[in-house]
Amino acid sequence: MRVALELMTEKGFLSTGIEEVLSRSEVPRGSFYYYFPSKEAFGLEAIDAYDAFFVNKIEKFLGNQRRSTIERIVAFMDDAEHGMSKYGFRRGCLVGNLGQEMGALPGSFRIKLVAVLEGWERRFAVCIADGQLRNEISDHLDPERLARLFWTGWEGAVLRAKLESNPQPLHIFGDAFLEILKAR
Amino acid sequence: MRVALELMTEKGFLSTGIEEVLSRSEVPRGSFYYYFPSKEAFGLEAIDAYDAFFVNKIEKFLGNQRRSTIERIVAFMDDAEHGMSKYGFRRGCLVGNLGQEMGALPGSFRIKLVAVLEGWERRFAVCIADGQLRNEISDHLDPERLARLFWTGWEGAVLRAKLESNPQPLHIFGDAFLEILKAR
Repeated sequence: MRVALELMTEKGFLSTGIEEVLSRSEVPRGSFYYYFPSKEAFGLEAIDAYDAFFVNKIEKFLGNQRRSTIERIVAFMDDAEHGMSKYGFRRGCLVGNLGQEMGALPGSFRIKLVAVLEGWERRFAVCIADGQLRNEISDHLDPERLARLFWTGWEGAVLRAKLESNPQPLHIFGDAFLEILKAR
Repeated sequence: MRVALELMTEKGFLSTGIEEVLSRSEVPRGSFYYYFPSKEAFGLEAIDAYDAFFVNKIEKFLGNQRRSTIERIVAFMDDAEHGMSKYGFRRGCLVGNLGQEMGALPGSFRIKLVAVLEGWERRFAVCIADGQLRNEISDHLDPERLARLFWTGWEGAVLRAKLESNPQPLHIFGDAFLEILKAR
């Protein structure tokens, strides 16, 4: 699963072959088909594994009560930049990669990918609403809409950072989003 | 080329096979290899063809002197939504699709894709600078930075609209961008 996520965050689902996953991870073919009936079933479990990893990360950063809500969001973005930089900006977001391939993926992927993004957004919306209560974030905008704006633009920024091998797109979108949160 | 662009805007470069392009377009294999030495060479020409089509569209909308600069940008976004809706939100942006696959594409693609986005951004920056001169767009931000913000977030919105089969992500990002342009 770890090897598969490495490959799929680099180049997506369609061009990641089961053979490549098995040979890199030194797992015999029979073992794979013992656990997964098909590549589709494997892909769906890979999304779940990525989601669990990512939700853990979001909760760690956005739930840190010792920091202001703006600081928590900045810490989340900094960590994402660090994560991309560590792998030379070759790996993007699994959800973004699979979203781009949606035209050729099974329908089961769409339902799961949409639900995963909504889960991440719910956690952002809670943090933003908390910031509005604490008067750290402007309260003229709906937290859920702001969370949706964040994930819509952030996936674009991750894609662009991967394309350019460079963190600047993360800063361009991140800074604009923080300005919106702070605008009075 | 038209068939290839249809397939590649749906599912990317890696999983679009030359065989599929040839059989759908009823072009014999020999003719393909007469014009293109490799799939890589074909992919690079496909990016050029898409860029030419898209630059034409951007110039048509952003260069329309009878409208305010904000109206021109809105017209561009509306047309993009119309274009996605026409194909049931199955087709995204070729540049976004190929960007996601960058981890597995030849280096020649990166240089070309970055240059294409920069070309689109330059045209947006000219329109935004024009809007600032006409006092239609807030002049506290750098036009090039705003153009870069637009294309970074817009690619994310197109990806999300494709994932959800739904135009709402285009509105979420588009509305936020217009707010930034108008903020005093």
